[in-house]
Amino acid sequence: MSAAKPQNHSQKLAEVRHHILDLLLNNDDLADSILGEKTADPRNTLLMDQTADLSASVATLHAADLADILEALPEHQRLALWSLVEPSVRGKALVEVSETVWDSLIEEMSDRDLLRAIAYLDLDDQVYLAEYLPRDLTGRVLTSLEPRLRDKVREVMKFGKSSVGRIMDFELLTIRPDVTLAAVQRYLRFRKIIPKGSDKLFVTDRNNLLLGELPLTTVLLNAPLQRVEEVMNDDPTTFSPDDKADDAASAFERYDLITAPVVDLKGKLMGRLTVESIVDFVNEDSDANLRRMGGISPEEDVFSPVGKAVKNRWAWLAINLCTAFVASRVIGLFEHTISELVALAALMPIVAGIGGNTGNQTITMIVRGLALHQVQLSNMPFLLLRELGVALINGLIWGGLMGVVTWLLYGNMAMGAVMTLAMVLNLLVAALMGVLIPLTMVRLGRDPALGSSVMITALTDTGGFFIFLGLATIFLL
Amino acid sequence: MSAAKPQNHSQKLAEVRHHILDLLLNNDDLADSILGEKTADPRNTLLMDQTADLSASVATLHAADLADILEALPEHQRLALWSLVEPSVRGKALVEVSETVWDSLIEEMSDRDLLRAIAYLDLDDQVYLAEYLPRDLTGRVLTSLEPRLRDKVREVMKFGKSSVGRIMDFELLTIRPDVTLAAVQRYLRFRKIIPKGSDKLFVTDRNNLLLGELPLTTVLLNAPLQRVEEVMNDDPTTFSPDDKADDAASAFERYDLITAPVVDLKGKLMGRLTVESIVDFVNEDSDANLRRMGGISPEEDVFSPVGKAVKNRWAWLAINLCTAFVASRVIGLFEHTISELVALAALMPIVAGIGGNTGNQTITMIVRGLALHQVQLSNMPFLLLRELGVALINGLIWGGLMGVVTWLLYGNMAMGAVMTLAMVLNLLVAALMGVLIPLTMVRLGRDPALGSSVMITALTDTGGFFIFLGLATIFLL
Repeated sequence: MSAAKPQNHSQKLAEVRHHILDLLLNNDDLADSILGEKTADPRNTLLMDQTADLSASVATLHAADLADILEALPEHQRLALWSLVEPSVRGKALVEVSETVWDSLIEEMSDRDLLRAIAYLDLDDQVYLAEYLPRDLTGRVLTSLEPRLRDKVREVMKFGKSSVGRIMDFELLTIRPDVTLAAVQRYLRFRKIIPKGSDKLFVTDRNNLLLGELPLTTVLLNAPLQRVEEVMNDDPTTFSPDDKADDAASAFERYDLITAPVVDLKGKLMGRLTVESIVDFVNEDSDANLRRMGGISPEEDVFSPVGKAVKNRWAWLAINLCTAFVASRVIGLFEHTISELVALAALMPIVAGIGGNTGNQTITMIVRGLALHQVQLSNMPFLLLRELGVALINGLIWGGLMGVVTWLLYGNMAMGAVMTLAMVLNLLVAALMGVLIPLTMVRLGRDPALGSSVMITALTDTGGFFIFLGLATIFLL
Repeated sequence: MSAAKPQNHSQKLAEVRHHILDLLLNNDDLADSILGEKTADPRNTLLMDQTADLSASVATLHAADLADILEALPEHQRLALWSLVEPSVRGKALVEVSETVWDSLIEEMSDRDLLRAIAYLDLDDQVYLAEYLPRDLTGRVLTSLEPRLRDKVREVMKFGKSSVGRIMDFELLTIRPDVTLAAVQRYLRFRKIIPKGSDKLFVTDRNNLLLGELPLTTVLLNAPLQRVEEVMNDDPTTFSPDDKADDAASAFERYDLITAPVVDLKGKLMGRLTVESIVDFVNEDSDANLRRMGGISPEEDVFSPVGKAVKNRWAWLAINLCTAFVASRVIGLFEHTISELVALAALMPIVAGIGGNTGNQTITMIVRGLALHQVQLSNMPFLLLRELGVALINGLIWGGLMGVVTWLLYGNMAMGAVMTLAMVLNLLVAALMGVLIPLTMVRLGRDPALGSSVMITALTDTGGFFIFLGLATIFLL
């Protein structure tokens, strides 16, 4: 028995990662030689040693860490490293790696290799890969399963994406309510295995109806002769497969759950949720949100080829260009005004910019409030008044300041007054739209975080130019 | 024994939430009467009934759900609801509620009430509240603890915010390596309690040196006569209190951990991390990030009073105003050019806008790549070339399109050419800065997500105006 070394986990990992990247990126021949593109000179022992070194390093890695390193490599080196990964680890690595990298990894794998890699996985991971991998392997994975599992998988695939049904697993250990804890322990020792991540057993009747749950700690803490039904929790927090995974995640956080049963409408046990699958879901979800807010499709990573990246960002740039063009046409309406008073051209971006900023602040607050269920129909009037109040005060303060600066800069007091008035009005528009846009999106059943920011910026730009130049046309010419 | 009802958790919760909000928001008298501001007419049985109804609803809620509802209420109603919360639940609710709501909740509580509420909590929650609550209660909470705990707390408070030391707890159950599993079970039954969220026991020697960990499932699956050291995991994933909580979170996700030991440099067991505290940390962290990206301070919520919200958003608006002012002065440099060719005023926001958009896309990719350790010094040249390539292609396509549109719109081919050239150049600036800004921030030891977006927008605005108007001055006058 050796004492556990006090090793810092993240330091150790960083070292291995650095070592692997170093070997592959600073030596072009190494990747070539691994991929057999250059017939390695057998006397070139350095390359052989480095390959062996690389294989050994890869073997020490957890699949998730390996996936990270694969993502961090350009395509050629990525393939070289992949060819050193054991078949038994490949499936798990494919599950962990981001979808953007799949293409290149499975390109050189035959369908048979791929099916073999998948066969090492748990059922839920098999379904995930079979369904989302670029090649349509669903049918073939299904036929490789035994009939009972096949039916189960078919059933699961009916549930909507981001539903509890999609992230539950089937590694259930059920017991009957009328046995003793001693019998439970005998049964466990006989089975020799408890599903990974279990903190409880599920208590069901003959018809698979969920009666309660029995935490493992309850088994350990109570007298062996007690019966399960005497000590089980008979009011567990359950989920239905149609529940949103989001809501399940928030329940796991609130109630500090580690596993929870999933039951159908009749109360029959269908599967279980684990905190691991919840954490994975939350991470993927927040990653996807971050990308969408920046207008980047989930298929792009930092190593996507240029052509793919260009295609991915087109839609967003096109939208942006359209809104900018509309704003430009609004300015075009006032060319006469600008030609009379060129200073307006320099001042107008200030009005537009500050409006966009305020609008985005408001939207951030509202989207967050919606996500936390703090914003409801009943408190909307209060919210709207609050945001308008904030906008009015900010408009008077900052608009007033810019008005004075304008007056001093151009010696034109009327122009300063127009500046102040335009800023106040545009901030009010920004606040109003900042509340209304996300709420309208929710009403229409859409995600309020997606696209709200583009819309508000378009409105405050166009609105800002129109208000400022319109007021200038009325009062300054 | 009753069968567990197949009740959908989130539906049930939504009903209770809706009921409470409904009662409080649609009836001004109710909050007044609860707070004793109007002497309730004893014959007004409706108000009495509603208050009783409210109390009953509150009593069914988990502290986290209660916190949510408190946050969703305007101040007056929030206080009314708070006065119905049991002292034993108040501490937990304070932990769960966002910091923005603390002020109003503890206003009407005396220090003694507050200390009593805190006393119901676990040690780590006590430290959290004592340290962050508006009133400085750290000293008083410390003196209310027994000396052994007091020293421990003092030690913990030395670790940096967002470190493992800050989110670990001390509910450790340790056992010796040389006892049998049967003895472990006897010991557990004798103690009658296992720390919440435990999936394992920690094996230590007489000097508290960590020797390994013993999963509860191992205790259940193995023969009672086996000794701990024969079946324990002697190479556990450990953390040190100085590790970043972020890194620990990613290790928990990767390795599907539920609890993990925290050891000091000598390998002595100090505390443990639980997946609950990790999930809480991740949620708070991502919430804070979301707000910072929108320029909203963590102290603001949707119900902060107007004055507070104005103050919170000042800094951000001031920065925005400064950058807009600089851009405005750049335009001011070219007033002569604009007065000769007013169309330029209408076209320039397009060049600036599209640059900001591209720059933000690039930054989103790089920040994400940095967070996932995919972006390293060694692959930076590749990344920079890639982003410049994407920018060049997008610039030629969209810039070309806008050039043609400009030509057709104003019948001026040279102006169209200037438009195309300016857009290509500004997109290249955006890509270059989009890579360099976040990498520089990391080099300076700062968070690359924070402020990068403001900087890139300022640069592409100013740059866009300068490039476009500069080229126009050279080629069009």
